Amino acid sequence: MKKVAVILSGCGVYDGTEIHEAVITLLAIRQNGAAYQCFAPDIPQMHVINHLSGEPVEGEVRNVLVESARIARGDIKPLAQCNAEEFDALVVPGGFGAAKNLCTFAVDGPESHFDADVMRVCKAFADAYKPAGYACIAPALAAAVYADSVKLTIGTDAGTAAGINALGACHIDCPVDEVVIDREARLVTTPAYMLAEDILQAYKGLTKMVETVLSLK
Amino acid sequence: MKKVAVILSGCGVYDGTEIHEAVITLLAIRQNGAAYQCFAPDIPQMHVINHLSGEPVEGEVRNVLVESARIARGDIKPLAQCNAEEFDALVVPGGFGAAKNLCTFAVDGPESHFDADVMRVCKAFADAYKPAGYACIAPALAAAVYADSVKLTIGTDAGTAAGINALGACHIDCPVDEVVIDREARLVTTPAYMLAEDILQAYKGLTKMVETVLSLK
Repeated sequence: MKKVAVILSGCGVYDGTEIHEAVITLLAIRQNGAAYQCFAPDIPQMHVINHLSGEPVEGEVRNVLVESARIARGDIKPLAQCNAEEFDALVVPGGFGAAKNLCTFAVDGPESHFDADVMRVCKAFADAYKPAGYACIAPALAAAVYADSVKLTIGTDAGTAAGINALGACHIDCPVDEVVIDREARLVTTPAYMLAEDILQAYKGLTKMVETVLSLK
Repeated sequence: MKKVAVILSGCGVYDGTEIHEAVITLLAIRQNGAAYQCFAPDIPQMHVINHLSGEPVEGEVRNVLVESARIARGDIKPLAQCNAEEFDALVVPGGFGAAKNLCTFAVDGPESHFDADVMRVCKAFADAYKPAGYACIAPALAAAVYADSVKLTIGTDAGTAAGINALGACHIDCPVDEVVIDREARLVTTPAYMLAEDILQAYKGLTKMVETVLSLK
């Protein structure tokens, strides 16, 4: 049975992992006969956002690993313990957490800071040519992990695509139910909620991403 | 298109809605051609549990509606605004939130307190003979909503079943991939994570529950 490492970045679209994307990813991994282990960095979140109002909550601090544990039902490890040699593939769901906590692309764009543990783990999968799937805004992270001109997508938003191209990637427009595959890098990306208008659209692209990741040789 | 009201109770298995159950429920509703609107009571959670350690976080207060909004991506309304006349069916996913925030069965058993808004809304669906699905531990709530001897399941745990029977229900043992249907009450229940050992098992029972709820006349 193939084993997939999944990197979470909190619990909630505006300050953490997009919850639908994470759960659909975990479900698709199991539906395709593979197993998963969730990881998250043990660091404070950049923000806590009230998801009812959309406003930041001043003075509140939440931990990325502790909040990610909600999605993983407690079965999660600190990202520092992730050894790529123990896994066949990597998946990074989206949500603002991928662009606020794993890196700072959401606020810094091409001047983004990238978390050191996140880069170490993601580069280990890339350097070993193990397949990886990055969804939604997480390809901003992939742009820094992979060699220049790696092909990837965040959907069709021109401003975001320009920011990702400034990091060295080659953005390709992609509809919500499709994936972009860089076969040389073994990188699969899908727009998910960068474009999805409902959970059904997100499901189609994300399941295709997971299927593709697990089928790449 | 049928419209389903979904009642959430927070965001995380130990103090709120079980996240996998909620997302699978929303996905199944859309996969079966129906639409949903999420609701949650605007009240403080009974507990905040650190989902990494499993321990309560002393002194921290989170709001059920605000945390549920994470699962709903912000598209959620206070339960007080839920009018059963506007919907064809009701679904209540599980997680400890259903037995800590919607009622207090997790700590009080047969002496459970039931939230007034929750009871008003759930009884409105029951009194109108509109189909309803309750998953995991949420059938403890259904035991108080429906008439005595209503048939339902929380899986196979004898102690929990006895507590629910003490509320007047008639518990029926049920495997994780099946549902118990009370056709007279139009109530469908499934064990979900009361029994599920992984997300694939939860998916099978929950999708069967949603399909059954949407097919009942």
